[in-house]
Amino acid sequence: MYQPINFAHKFSLFTEQWQPKVIAEMNDYQFKVVKIHGDFVWHSHPETDEVFIVLEGALRIDFREGEVWIKPGEMYVVPRGVEHKPYAGVETQLILIEPRGVLNTGHEGGERTAVNDVWI
Amino acid sequence: MYQPINFAHKFSLFTEQWQPKVIAEMNDYQFKVVKIHGDFVWHSHPETDEVFIVLEGALRIDFREGEVWIKPGEMYVVPRGVEHKPYAGVETQLILIEPRGVLNTGHEGGERTAVNDVWI
Repeated sequence: MYQPINFAHKFSLFTEQWQPKVIAEMNDYQFKVVKIHGDFVWHSHPETDEVFIVLEGALRIDFREGEVWIKPGEMYVVPRGVEHKPYAGVETQLILIEPRGVLNTGHEGGERTAVNDVWI
Repeated sequence: MYQPINFAHKFSLFTEQWQPKVIAEMNDYQFKVVKIHGDFVWHSHPETDEVFIVLEGALRIDFREGEVWIKPGEMYVVPRGVEHKPYAGVETQLILIEPRGVLNTGHEGGERTAVNDVWI
C-alpha cells in the first residue's frame, strides 16, 4: 500500500532524452525525471522558479552572464524569469521540480517542447 | 556568482538531530536538510503535502494503518492531513520539501518543535 519512489528504478524505465516524466506530485508541484545529453535551447519561465537536482552525469546551466556546474548530489534553483540554457557533455540524469503545467521550453515553444504531464 | 548547493557539504556543517535547516527556496517552498535518529512524534500537516528524500541511512514513516521504508535514492510524499511518525534506526540524512512556514511537528506542537526558518 505504501511504496517509496525509487529514482534509479524510474530512470531504468526509459531511454529517450529531453522528455521529462512525472514521478510524484506535492500539492500543485511536480517531480520529474529526465535524461539529457547535449545542448538545449535558451528559455525562461516568467511565472516560476525551477529546481534541478543532478543524480548522474554533470549539468551545466548557461546564463547570459555566467554559468553553473551541477554535479551528482547537488541542486540549483533557477529564479523565475531568468534566461537559461541547460547543457550536458555526457548523458545526465536530473530531477526537475516545478509547478504542474510548466513546459520544458518555457514560453519559447518550438520543436524541443516536450509533451507535458507524462507520468512514469 | 553562480554556485550549486551541495548536499554533503550542507550536512557537514552541523551535527544536531531533528532540527531542519533551510538550504534553498523555490517560490514559496523550502528545501531543508535534517539529521534524524530514533522516534519522532505523531503529527500531520492539514494544509500541505510533505516530501521526504533520503540521502543516507533509512527512514521509516509509520502511518496509523501501515508504514513505508525510504532508503537512499528514494522519496516519498506524505499527503496533507495524514498522520505520520518518522523513525530512523541509524542516523539518517533527509531532504524535506514543503511550503515556507511549515513546522516539523505540524499542528501538534510540543517540545519536539524545532525553530523554523533557520538557514545553513
